[in-house]
Amino acid sequence: MSTVDRPGLSDSVAAAVDESRLWAAHVALASIGGTPAGGVCRLALSAEDAEARRLLAAWARERQWSVAVDPIGNLFIRREGQDPRLPPVVTGSHLDTQPTGGRFDGVYGVLAGIEVLRALDDARIGTQRAVEVVAWTNEEGCRFSPGMMGSEAFAGIRDVATMLVVQDANGVSVAEALASTLDATPDATRRPLGFPVHAYVEAHIEQGPELERTGNTIGVVTGIQGTCRLRVEVRGDEAHAGTSRRGQRRDALLAATRMIQAIEQHVESCDPADDVRLTFGMLKVKPNVPSVVASWAYFSIDVRHADDDVMLGLVARIEPICREQAGGCDVKVTEIQRALATRFEGRAFDAVLAATRSRGYRHIAMPSGAGHDARQMAQLCPSAMVFVPCAGGVSHNEAESAEPADLAAGTRVLAHAVHELANT
Amino acid sequence: MSTVDRPGLSDSVAAAVDESRLWAAHVALASIGGTPAGGVCRLALSAEDAEARRLLAAWARERQWSVAVDPIGNLFIRREGQDPRLPPVVTGSHLDTQPTGGRFDGVYGVLAGIEVLRALDDARIGTQRAVEVVAWTNEEGCRFSPGMMGSEAFAGIRDVATMLVVQDANGVSVAEALASTLDATPDATRRPLGFPVHAYVEAHIEQGPELERTGNTIGVVTGIQGTCRLRVEVRGDEAHAGTSRRGQRRDALLAATRMIQAIEQHVESCDPADDVRLTFGMLKVKPNVPSVVASWAYFSIDVRHADDDVMLGLVARIEPICREQAGGCDVKVTEIQRALATRFEGRAFDAVLAATRSRGYRHIAMPSGAGHDARQMAQLCPSAMVFVPCAGGVSHNEAESAEPADLAAGTRVLAHAVHELANT
Repeated sequence: MSTVDRPGLSDSVAAAVDESRLWAAHVALASIGGTPAGGVCRLALSAEDAEARRLLAAWARERQWSVAVDPIGNLFIRREGQDPRLPPVVTGSHLDTQPTGGRFDGVYGVLAGIEVLRALDDARIGTQRAVEVVAWTNEEGCRFSPGMMGSEAFAGIRDVATMLVVQDANGVSVAEALASTLDATPDATRRPLGFPVHAYVEAHIEQGPELERTGNTIGVVTGIQGTCRLRVEVRGDEAHAGTSRRGQRRDALLAATRMIQAIEQHVESCDPADDVRLTFGMLKVKPNVPSVVASWAYFSIDVRHADDDVMLGLVARIEPICREQAGGCDVKVTEIQRALATRFEGRAFDAVLAATRSRGYRHIAMPSGAGHDARQMAQLCPSAMVFVPCAGGVSHNEAESAEPADLAAGTRVLAHAVHELANT
Repeated sequence: MSTVDRPGLSDSVAAAVDESRLWAAHVALASIGGTPAGGVCRLALSAEDAEARRLLAAWARERQWSVAVDPIGNLFIRREGQDPRLPPVVTGSHLDTQPTGGRFDGVYGVLAGIEVLRALDDARIGTQRAVEVVAWTNEEGCRFSPGMMGSEAFAGIRDVATMLVVQDANGVSVAEALASTLDATPDATRRPLGFPVHAYVEAHIEQGPELERTGNTIGVVTGIQGTCRLRVEVRGDEAHAGTSRRGQRRDALLAATRMIQAIEQHVESCDPADDVRLTFGMLKVKPNVPSVVASWAYFSIDVRHADDDVMLGLVARIEPICREQAGGCDVKVTEIQRALATRFEGRAFDAVLAATRSRGYRHIAMPSGAGHDARQMAQLCPSAMVFVPCAGGVSHNEAESAEPADLAAGTRVLAHAVHELANT
């Protein structure tokens, strides 16, 4: 196929991206699981997730794009290419949110993909390869832990069977929730898991403050820092608050707080540049009543760093520190997820960088602090990401905010890059 | 009235205490709310509490004792005296338990009282004053906080109106739960709150290890240490675990663990004898998910000491310490309950000490580490307590255990003392 006219066509596709339509799509999705504080609670495989999928499928029907789902519930919307046998270009992200999440994390990548398909249609431009928009199942991992289920299953990193038995806090399994979610898109073709992909590009809000701080519109993402997730279970003994002496107690809550402080202080002492991301986001206690010494505490540790050696060195210190601080309690440290640092390179990264330059947006190359489905896809095919600014870098928060013009700019870069990739 | 034959009659009443019957009553009550692990979950004003009250009322009917309830649901079982106009002697404790409570905390004092009435009947011995057995409402305070509602209302320490609006975690109010609980005893006379009491004696398991450790059967309780209960609310900002630097965060969970450790270390440094009881039993976190920096943490502090000056001096340090450790978070410290140290003295204490000596049990005088309804009664009338050993000092725990012979010994002391007091 001739490539002579592609730059011009890519410009046309980018120009056909409609900022108002893209914003209206965000408003529509924000109403599904919208919270009084202006955020979104659309947990993975919930009724709200199903409702969002139903809306996407309806939009696909309007344009006669085909809809498919796979065994973990990943939803694919396909605009056919001139040669259906060629591996498609895939773009997208996820529809699920944190319990008090915002209106852009994840859903932007899906809606940007839909807008690219609409722009291709409106510009009446065909592509050699099909372009597919994907909504990956359960990226966030807050209802069913751990997250990234859809992309990990697709990339063959974890087995679907182990995912289907995971239960939420109410004892509902992924298998049960998935069955009712898939009822929302009864016309979707059932596909087996995984297929060859030519390139994957994911658009996302930055979820950090760098673009805003430096006055840039586009972040060309160079990679994703490594992540390690652990759980620490502490077992002591229940005792009466008024009669048991401190020296006689095995206080699980007190031991857990000591462990958290010791790990935090260890990181503070060896990371003066504040490059390690260390978070204790979850702590559960039993029986959790004021007059009873706690017999059980359970907390999460999330460690991230761009340098795998630094991350793994720190993770190796966590269990010894917990044991030192156990104060007679039993302690069990479990690593539940490990993802080494990812570098984006090759044709997808090159296409995003070239598209950004062509469109003339102010941009920087930058790493991603957050994990994304693109990390898993990078193990399968050339992958890349496009970041746009979000106000104050705030994310995983109902106050999450992004500008319509920035969302459109990122979508124009995506449209340009996807069009290029779909013709190579 | 002649007192010449009372010592002999008190011996007869004590001798009529039936260890097997008392144990059978404990077994019957332990089945109401019994847990698989052998403990009891009989929360205040729950269906199980109502069921326990129904059983007590049935036992009263068998013996033709009268049954009454007051506006906060305290249940009174009265064996009439020769002069009904005289203030009665009251004995009892509470039927409610912690969520993972045991088979003796509280219920022993009520069942020991019932056994005293049965022993008086069986020995065909009348008393000048009526003897009443009371089951105080919501001593534990774990479903509806704070506890001691029944005895505090009876003693006029807190207003019933402020108690009735308290809600449990499911939004059920005390008023609603009380209405359905009182349906369990429809024949009970409705009484106004409070009446003159000649003396109050409460039997209880020690909930500490001293009696067992020193080989004593009876603890003659000299008083109850003071208690102060606080709540600390910490507010920060949600943020993404992967993108926000530690230095930029306002992490409510990290701040709460720092406060807890700083308070604990302060007490360790100024209480080498380990006499201060300091407990952080409850800690709640929002949103409490692994990949989001916590925006809210809420924890309890329970401080107890026999010396009010020590207790209040420590309590005064808590808010400054929390502010020092807030690390940019907002912090609000609220004192929700304060009870100064109580001394048991006067006719009730004297009667318990004399009865213990008369019965010849090995005994010690000892303070109570736990709070009890007797603290409130001591503000109204001469009050006292009888302790019996519990295995390992374990309480507020499903493993709580006591020996039938010890329970009977405490009940014989109670029978002897109550009989004496009911004739003065």
